[in-house]
Amino acid sequence: MFATGNIKRQKTREQTRSLDNDNFPAMGRIDYKPDASYSHHEDNFYYRYYNSNERLHGRTMEDWMRPSIFLGKAFTPYPGCSPRPWSENPITLYNMQNMHSLENYKRGVRAMFELCMKMGIKYWSGYDRDLAPEGETSEETQYNYEQVVDLIQEYQQKSGIRPLWIGIDFKNTYKFRNGAVTNPESSIVTYAGYQTKRALDIANKLGAENVMFSASQEGYFNIMNTDITRELKNFHKFLKLMIEHKDRIGYRGQLLMQTAYDNRKAFRDEGYKYCYDFPSTLCFLKHYNFERQFKLVVKPGHFSYMANMYGCLGSIDIKHKNLYDVQKAAMTMKMIVENGGISPGGLTFYVPHHKSTFDAKDLAEAFITAVDTYAKALRIAVKFINDIQLNKSIQMRYVSFSSGWGSKFNSSEANLDDCDDQIRKQEPNIMQPPPSRSEHWYAVLTRNMETPFK
Amino acid sequence: MFATGNIKRQKTREQTRSLDNDNFPAMGRIDYKPDASYSHHEDNFYYRYYNSNERLHGRTMEDWMRPSIFLGKAFTPYPGCSPRPWSENPITLYNMQNMHSLENYKRGVRAMFELCMKMGIKYWSGYDRDLAPEGETSEETQYNYEQVVDLIQEYQQKSGIRPLWIGIDFKNTYKFRNGAVTNPESSIVTYAGYQTKRALDIANKLGAENVMFSASQEGYFNIMNTDITRELKNFHKFLKLMIEHKDRIGYRGQLLMQTAYDNRKAFRDEGYKYCYDFPSTLCFLKHYNFERQFKLVVKPGHFSYMANMYGCLGSIDIKHKNLYDVQKAAMTMKMIVENGGISPGGLTFYVPHHKSTFDAKDLAEAFITAVDTYAKALRIAVKFINDIQLNKSIQMRYVSFSSGWGSKFNSSEANLDDCDDQIRKQEPNIMQPPPSRSEHWYAVLTRNMETPFK
Amino acid sequence: MFATGNIKRQKTREQTRSLDNDNFPAMGRIDYKPDASYSHHEDNFYYRYYNSNERLHGRTMEDWMRPSIFLGKAFTPYPGCSPRPWSENPITLYNMQNMHSLENYKRGVRAMFELCMKMGIKYWSGYDRDLAPEGETSEETQYNYEQVVDLIQEYQQKSGIRPLWIGIDFKNTYKFRNGAVTNPESSIVTYAGYQTKRALDIANKLGAENVMFSASQEGYFNIMNTDITRELKNFHKFLKLMIEHKDRIGYRGQLLMQTAYDNRKAFRDEGYKYCYDFPSTLCFLKHYNFERQFKLVVKPGHFSYMANMYGCLGSIDIKHKNLYDVQKAAMTMKMIVENGGISPGGLTFYVPHHKSTFDAKDLAEAFITAVDTYAKALRIAVKFINDIQLNKSIQMRYVSFSSGWGSKFNSSEANLDDCDDQIRKQEPNIMQPPPSRSEHWYAVLTRNMETPFK
Amino acid sequence: MFATGNIKRQKTREQTRSLDNDNFPAMGRIDYKPDASYSHHEDNFYYRYYNSNERLHGRTMEDWMRPSIFLGKAFTPYPGCSPRPWSENPITLYNMQNMHSLENYKRGVRAMFELCMKMGIKYWSGYDRDLAPEGETSEETQYNYEQVVDLIQEYQQKSGIRPLWIGIDFKNTYKFRNGAVTNPESSIVTYAGYQTKRALDIANKLGAENVMFSASQEGYFNIMNTDITRELKNFHKFLKLMIEHKDRIGYRGQLLMQTAYDNRKAFRDEGYKYCYDFPSTLCFLKHYNFERQFKLVVKPGHFSYMANMYGCLGSIDIKHKNLYDVQKAAMTMKMIVENGGISPGGLTFYVPHHKSTFDAKDLAEAFITAVDTYAKALRIAVKFINDIQLNKSIQMRYVSFSSGWGSKFNSSEANLDDCDDQIRKQEPNIMQPPPSRSEHWYAVLTRNMETPFK
Repeated sequence: MFATGNIKRQKTREQTRSLDNDNFPAMGRIDYKPDASYSHHEDNFYYRYYNSNERLHGRTMEDWMRPSIFLGKAFTPYPGCSPRPWSENPITLYNMQNMHSLENYKRGVRAMFELCMKMGIKYWSGYDRDLAPEGETSEETQYNYEQVVDLIQEYQQKSGIRPLWIGIDFKNTYKFRNGAVTNPESSIVTYAGYQTKRALDIANKLGAENVMFSASQEGYFNIMNTDITRELKNFHKFLKLMIEHKDRIGYRGQLLMQTAYDNRKAFRDEGYKYCYDFPSTLCFLKHYNFERQFKLVVKPGHFSYMANMYGCLGSIDIKHKNLYDVQKAAMTMKMIVENGGISPGGLTFYVPHHKSTFDAKDLAEAFITAVDTYAKALRIAVKFINDIQLNKSIQMRYVSFSSGWGSKFNSSEANLDDCDDQIRKQEPNIMQPPPSRSEHWYAVLTRNMETPFK
Repeated sequence: MFATGNIKRQKTREQTRSLDNDNFPAMGRIDYKPDASYSHHEDNFYYRYYNSNERLHGRTMEDWMRPSIFLGKAFTPYPGCSPRPWSENPITLYNMQNMHSLENYKRGVRAMFELCMKMGIKYWSGYDRDLAPEGETSEETQYNYEQVVDLIQEYQQKSGIRPLWIGIDFKNTYKFRNGAVTNPESSIVTYAGYQTKRALDIANKLGAENVMFSASQEGYFNIMNTDITRELKNFHKFLKLMIEHKDRIGYRGQLLMQTAYDNRKAFRDEGYKYCYDFPSTLCFLKHYNFERQFKLVVKPGHFSYMANMYGCLGSIDIKHKNLYDVQKAAMTMKMIVENGGISPGGLTFYVPHHKSTFDAKDLAEAFITAVDTYAKALRIAVKFINDIQLNKSIQMRYVSFSSGWGSKFNSSEANLDDCDDQIRKQEPNIMQPPPSRSEHWYAVLTRNMETPFK
Repeated sequence: MFATGNIKRQKTREQTRSLDNDNFPAMGRIDYKPDASYSHHEDNFYYRYYNSNERLHGRTMEDWMRPSIFLGKAFTPYPGCSPRPWSENPITLYNMQNMHSLENYKRGVRAMFELCMKMGIKYWSGYDRDLAPEGETSEETQYNYEQVVDLIQEYQQKSGIRPLWIGIDFKNTYKFRNGAVTNPESSIVTYAGYQTKRALDIANKLGAENVMFSASQEGYFNIMNTDITRELKNFHKFLKLMIEHKDRIGYRGQLLMQTAYDNRKAFRDEGYKYCYDFPSTLCFLKHYNFERQFKLVVKPGHFSYMANMYGCLGSIDIKHKNLYDVQKAAMTMKMIVENGGISPGGLTFYVPHHKSTFDAKDLAEAFITAVDTYAKALRIAVKFINDIQLNKSIQMRYVSFSSGWGSKFNSSEANLDDCDDQIRKQEPNIMQPPPSRSEHWYAVLTRNMETPFK
Repeated sequence: MFATGNIKRQKTREQTRSLDNDNFPAMGRIDYKPDASYSHHEDNFYYRYYNSNERLHGRTMEDWMRPSIFLGKAFTPYPGCSPRPWSENPITLYNMQNMHSLENYKRGVRAMFELCMKMGIKYWSGYDRDLAPEGETSEETQYNYEQVVDLIQEYQQKSGIRPLWIGIDFKNTYKFRNGAVTNPESSIVTYAGYQTKRALDIANKLGAENVMFSASQEGYFNIMNTDITRELKNFHKFLKLMIEHKDRIGYRGQLLMQTAYDNRKAFRDEGYKYCYDFPSTLCFLKHYNFERQFKLVVKPGHFSYMANMYGCLGSIDIKHKNLYDVQKAAMTMKMIVENGGISPGGLTFYVPHHKSTFDAKDLAEAFITAVDTYAKALRIAVKFINDIQLNKSIQMRYVSFSSGWGSKFNSSEANLDDCDDQIRKQEPNIMQPPPSRSEHWYAVLTRNMETPFK
């Protein structure tokens, strides 16, 4: 189930070893300090809940959570975002020319590794296009990638940190506006194939646990000039090539498919997408029998429960408000623990609002708070899982299926005619439906958000 | 492919025969009059495009469209809506007590048949709960249903009009607030079973082409006290019972599943739904291998194209703005014609905004305009299908897959390594992606909306 | 600033005095117990933060919050909702006929007073139409209202509890579908006038602090047959009549205008509303110079800050997710405290999802948790207000306006030409914008959500 | 009412005079040809409705519509969009470095003028940042602007085409992420002042009818570190400086404020905006008494009717689906004609989906179709305005206010007590509210969409 890669042969050195750079200067290793005071605002630089090696419900917290830091936007250059504190000079308010230099990608990678090490996080994640800038020729692009991949390899060896996933990103370029793998023009699809091959090779080289394909560009603007059937067939063919290449190079990680985080965008001016949220993506995979090859990356909450229920939960992306939403996090971690873990996927933390944050310290605080929110959620989840009263309450809610008439339905001994009989017979005794106790459980959940866990 | 039912033994009488009621007094049979003047506002009482028996592309317009009038809200009483013009007296601004009387349901049914006949529409559709009021006991409920079903049978015999679908509706009652077939309480599920049995029996008796199950109530409010796995298993069991009953009574129509029209409601204060739009419903059906038993009811546009693509298009519901949106209608009819029709489903027309419209004439105009909008759309669709220029344009858009390198991808002779070679080799010759001509086709579509079709 | 009414002459008796009814049987007075254990789920029946008479920042918690319990939906019958536990028998799954009986409204009122007393809450709020059922004639309606108002008066005298606001509700009836005070038909507007007069009279009699007008029905479905100018003029005239009646009867409370809670509904199938959210309502009031007469009821968060900024904050409605959102609550309470309070308005707590909750205990837990969430928020807010570090940080964020060039802008000594000069002069020194520290303050806020407040 | 500028001294030459460039090679002047055939797809290159000098209802079509072509995105480079057909070489799929060259802005300007001339459109519109690229220093930026402004002046003189508005755009740069004029850092506000000054100067030089300020960046991400009061005061001060500069340079055009087109974005990850739609912007203007200085730019439909009603309609932006929505266009044009015109504002046409369209011909078709859609709408509007039946119908809808009791309300002779009396007196005679005839008018509107207008 684990990815291959040279990573296994490396002797993982002590994570706290200096990487000879200091992008987060005032900040040392983030310690677990459950009783850290709240009196000073700078007390944010502790974990109050995340104790990576502490065992809960039979595994370490790290094993349950498998947290990963997302490289893009936060560390390496992104169009429309401000220069990072570690950008090479001079970038002024006027001059953004140098922003996307190879050097700035390298500096972003270094900063990410430094933060991962200081935070004690073992995984990073990133799209291919967040690793290095495209050049003017494929040679130049290739050169850029090689430089950065070499750097990453070096840092991975020093730190023992690995990629949770490497993603293939068709978003940041106009050439895929009419679709990447469903583009009507074969040379564009070829380009997508070239990019996918390279991403698989890099993932293999870096020992990524997963490779993620993002379908966010596949769709159409105008149905009048679109042959949906042909485009989806090409999509199908492309994924088969991807699987074939994966097998050929002997990559043993998991393939993932990412779905749009915010489906409200799907039906607006951006045209219609084939895979605009979790169910539409799963439909596509089921239709083409890709369920065994691809698992899904979803957001926390409802979609993650449904993905788990449908047996296709791959990994979880945590963005925006979800980063700090401990209630949703608790229910999501409860599902993961009950499910026996999420490996080889994990939790990928993106940093929110980053367009407006220019400060390394801020960035660190955001990641620390988010990881700690999910660590707290894990503790709450385990508490709930072991809570006899809660478990009994859920069981009791469905108790009417355990005996008498209900058990007949349960064991498929009754048919609709029997239902009819039953209703006419039972009529005088028909009771109010039992209380759902929804508000009670909201109250319990709310209260638990502040449990001191001593 | 057709439903059974006694309807086949009946001799269909002339549709224009008076049904001895006159809810649309000033209005006679709606004629096809393509050159009807626009000068007078009352010129709405013609079809300018809908000529039911005219053959287009090998079939009659009626066969392509299979239009049906929806009974609920427009004709029979609905909570929160105003009394209909045909309501029995006295209903005043203060006194709404009598609104849901059995008599008012009967009057609604009569008005609907009168309008269908005057409009020359051969199908009606309705939820079970729109047929008759629930009584205080199941006997009384049963009595109410029998009365109305008898009336409908009589009218069907006189008119030859039949149900396109009979739907099972769990919406209008608080008892299903925590789910109908996924309710944690077995007696509620039993009640849903009783209701489903009765609806299937009625559908069989009335010769409905389809029976529609609406999953709009299935879901949860609070994940903490919900066992999703159990609830979905119950859902699964219930649908098997439904199929079994269908087979037992020898009903030969199609089973449909309806999905929420407006998915924006799905994740708000109404809790989380298992089936909140087309893809989430299809996921559920695919997961439990119900794809062959249930087809889907979708709205016009994107979801209908995708349902067709995925082989599960059952019927089309037309509501709100879609009623008069001739552009979306044209693309939807084009898909239907290319698909070889939509039988045994059809187009079901709901009347919009009806809470504010108190006037029989208005009601008629809304239905006439909507049906005529889709008739116009059908004419445009056929024109497009026969348009050599358009077809060639679509073909040309994908032409790069027909020869050279593109054809290798097409015939699966190339792999990702070949893509890589190709990109490096072709580099100097990489062209701009070909124009999508999106705006051109929007312009053509817009122009065609006003084609006089002479 | 306080409303008149006979209430002042009454001697408020001890709130815990029995009202001779027991709708919440297992529940006694809710005590403040900050160190209540979390170990048992039934530990929800304490306040951990709300200590009504504790002084914080110069006032009691009760004074800052002015909490009120909303009567409608939770206690008295509401269309489509389930029968309450205190409904008179027999209401079965089939028979809902008796649900809207006068007796059930009375029982709902009694249950509300019992809960207010047990929770130690001094205010209730309610729409006119939640007080009593409409009868078949205006006499019968009047009789119903008198019965319930007498009952309320009796309970108010016994308990000292008063209305925070009485609202005028045009929602629950089809007659206002085309608008209440902007209806094209004068008899409907007259009916709205009759209803408004009665509500003002009742508010006066019961000593309500505020009377709230809800504009949620004013708008149009079809612009083609609508004379917007005339309708808004009628709206204007109507509000003048309302003010005139208020003065005539000597009611000294505050007039409020409520805005739609969820503006996403405003532009859908429900037509277009003149007042669909806070700014659209304020525009209307400003256009007709009603700013001094009417203040606004808004939801917590952004709209409440803006209402305060624009000097028109009247009262705060708390529904749905906002009930338990302590972060938004903390920021809202901070604004209220900095503003010197919200009197004569307050916080009105609605119970969420109530369609699915059938249990008195659940209802109580929901209200207790919501009030306690805002009490906790108040404690956090006061802590933030006294936090030198935070205040200095806000100040420092704008420090560039305090000296040098920035102070010239601040004191309006500079013009745009000076800006131009300045940019050209300063160019080499242009710095990155200072970090917003957004993530830092999110982290601080998140941490504070769990401060034990010892 | 007209803007000043040297434009008046210029002798406007014949518009069809060649501008010595040929970006739309196969396309000549777009003629009015009402009976143009629909048989060939290339028949899009005619106006079927827009006949600029034809007089309707007392004015030319051009006068009623005042159409303008938007420069940005469609013609000049835009981040993330594909190179235009007129981009200088070489821009390949890999190499986008040259895309934002000064030369490419110039080529975009030339292409726009060519299209305006061929289409017979007298106005263009554009944001300052769409005119020229920012350089590395303010000198370089200034040089770029001067080059392009000179070119525009030359083309304006040759063609007689003028700016409808010049907008000030703070969107496309990270430096304004925390607000432009409400930024906590004075140097950023200074930069906004510098940019505003330059835009006003350019507008004055080019004789723009209006100058538009876009408030889309003003707002906050995190209320905890935001001083709303101070930020809005700075906003207020800034607009006073803008007015002062306008007066100082003697610019006599109108000031406009633009509001967000799609308010769904306002409350998401982009933070909270002070001015996120039409009413929130108007609130701000009213609060600071800027109503006489600034008018509003709104989208077609409801917001435009309300802006007109509130006396602040400035100009209309037409984007996305609104470009081809003839129903909404008809109602908007009806409002404009009834209002006596929209001068000095007009209709600004943006091109939709342009990220995916790479073709000059497509671009032209989109603009031609959009202008023709509004021309058709104008014809329908005038027809409706002169339609006795329709006007009488609207009047009749409100007829109950013209006599008897209704007229008393109308003339403010009745008070709420009278309403009460009236309801009790009239009771037995209370009628159903009159039909709204909503569906009838929808039907009439739908029919008229296809009127041949012969």
